Amino acid sequence: MSAPAILALTAGEPAGIGPELCLQLAEEGREAGIVVIASKALLAARAQLLGREVTLHDWQPGQTPVTAPGHLSVFEVGGCASSDAGVLDPANSAYVLDTLRTAAEGCLRGDFDGMVTAPVHKGVINDAGMAFSGHTEFLQELCGVERVVMMLATEALRVALVTTHLPLKEVAAAITPERLGQVTRILNADLKAFFGIEHPRILVAGLNPHAGEGGHLGREEIEIIEPTLEQLRSEGIHLTGPLPADTLFTPHWLDNADAVLAMYHDQGLPVLKYQGFGRAVNITLGLPIVRTSVDHGTALDLAGSGRADAGSLQTAIRVGAHMARCRKAANQETRS
Amino acid sequence: MSAPAILALTAGEPAGIGPELCLQLAEEGREAGIVVIASKALLAARAQLLGREVTLHDWQPGQTPVTAPGHLSVFEVGGCASSDAGVLDPANSAYVLDTLRTAAEGCLRGDFDGMVTAPVHKGVINDAGMAFSGHTEFLQELCGVERVVMMLATEALRVALVTTHLPLKEVAAAITPERLGQVTRILNADLKAFFGIEHPRILVAGLNPHAGEGGHLGREEIEIIEPTLEQLRSEGIHLTGPLPADTLFTPHWLDNADAVLAMYHDQGLPVLKYQGFGRAVNITLGLPIVRTSVDHGTALDLAGSGRADAGSLQTAIRVGAHMARCRKAANQETRS
Repeated sequence: MSAPAILALTAGEPAGIGPELCLQLAEEGREAGIVVIASKALLAARAQLLGREVTLHDWQPGQTPVTAPGHLSVFEVGGCASSDAGVLDPANSAYVLDTLRTAAEGCLRGDFDGMVTAPVHKGVINDAGMAFSGHTEFLQELCGVERVVMMLATEALRVALVTTHLPLKEVAAAITPERLGQVTRILNADLKAFFGIEHPRILVAGLNPHAGEGGHLGREEIEIIEPTLEQLRSEGIHLTGPLPADTLFTPHWLDNADAVLAMYHDQGLPVLKYQGFGRAVNITLGLPIVRTSVDHGTALDLAGSGRADAGSLQTAIRVGAHMARCRKAANQETRS
Repeated sequence: MSAPAILALTAGEPAGIGPELCLQLAEEGREAGIVVIASKALLAARAQLLGREVTLHDWQPGQTPVTAPGHLSVFEVGGCASSDAGVLDPANSAYVLDTLRTAAEGCLRGDFDGMVTAPVHKGVINDAGMAFSGHTEFLQELCGVERVVMMLATEALRVALVTTHLPLKEVAAAITPERLGQVTRILNADLKAFFGIEHPRILVAGLNPHAGEGGHLGREEIEIIEPTLEQLRSEGIHLTGPLPADTLFTPHWLDNADAVLAMYHDQGLPVLKYQGFGRAVNITLGLPIVRTSVDHGTALDLAGSGRADAGSLQTAIRVGAHMARCRKAANQETRS
């Protein structure tokens, strides 16, 4: 039996609900060893504001994180100005990025088995003069990989996306054999490596309504998607599709699949969030590290109220820990 | 108390499951007066094939349809060649279109309170040399209206579409103020007229991911959708949006809404069919008549097996009867 996974948890935007969600974990319990990557002074101030009794423990690499109720291990990151809940301050942006860098570098070094991220606020980081288009892109660059894949998951459903945050009118042109091939290979490899699925079964949506209806409603299925899927099948990847997106999400197909690959954001995510809202987790595939995230924003209007729901964070931790265990098991098997 | 609604039920493609679904109704009971618009010989042959005991009664306008188990009222349409289950025959295409015309003209004359359609096969009708792109367009032309709206509904959810069967790459350009305005006005008017909702509350999805995120992910929300919704609000229509499609389909929004207006097919229908598969009904709004339809195809592979599920047809009849009753009530109120 290997040691339990240790996950780095970045507390996110100081003015948002991230810090208090981390404190809630200390009270509600957690399903993995957690080290919060944050300013201790910020956490202490937010605990005081909310009347929470949480003892913060300095953590150093190699130590086992505390798990007793009311206690939390913290790896200090400096540079956080005092922060009022709900009030963004561009002066804290460098600190926020430092927490991400600290967590990711710790994962790469092996200090952590994975990282879980509370929400950051893109706007204020950019207002501070730092180009930042999201956790995913930041980690992609830091880890030096060419392509990452966004996958959202609930207990019952996994949906990965070929394209993510593109204006709708640019989606069709972005569905190239190269991109579709890269995304599918990453999805297949990471379902094996991080989820312990030996032979992943992937359902692929078409791009057009009714998956193009034999070319009557668009030709991308015939000219791009089908030939690419054929190539991928010849590499041993188990793919079904392209299927019409509006019938794909039904038991007939889902009952015999491990993940859905949607062509774009609003084709796949409305169903996923309808199915599991408040309990969905955002997973970045294609990285050399485990990374999961909550599926909500900074909720500035809720910050400091103590009414934020830690459900998505708990799910992100549970899934992150599961992924870390699967990877460890796979690595041990490879070595033995 | 007014007389119960009488619905015309077109039996659809002779080789498909339409005819046997009509026969199933006779055994399972029906929630409205039903007149099947079909070839009696076809129905009798399919009943014999399946070993079903159904007595067919000729119906004439003004008569009350039979409702006793094992009995079915039929309005004869000629021109159907003998048909084997599962085997398409272009020679029957004129007959199929005649059943639609008969039902629609009967609705316009007032012989019927609405029509419900079993599936037809677009391909074989076109193979017969008759241009036919679907029930909706056929009825639109027959009724002489400029714009119709496709809405799918389950017991819990109604989703109408601004664009329907367009290649994805053509969707963005099709979202014009004119089209959005027409579709929204029809949706609002018909939720009142056919569903008895006094002040419909409509949720409108954005076109782009995150509803464009303030212009970062597309500008159609800012340049087209928001100004159009403002105009429509000034006409007294209750609209919320544009909302990100991936958070719109959650209780926070849905609990206080009567319908969702999605910008395109695969943005709205995957959730709807996930939520209510096998019990969804397709409704055409904007017509001067009530028209509902099953939410599945001809299922040639199932035809003649007796294993087809009449769930969607039963729902289409229930919803069609409800719409017809609401319209009668509204008309009576107007007159009194």
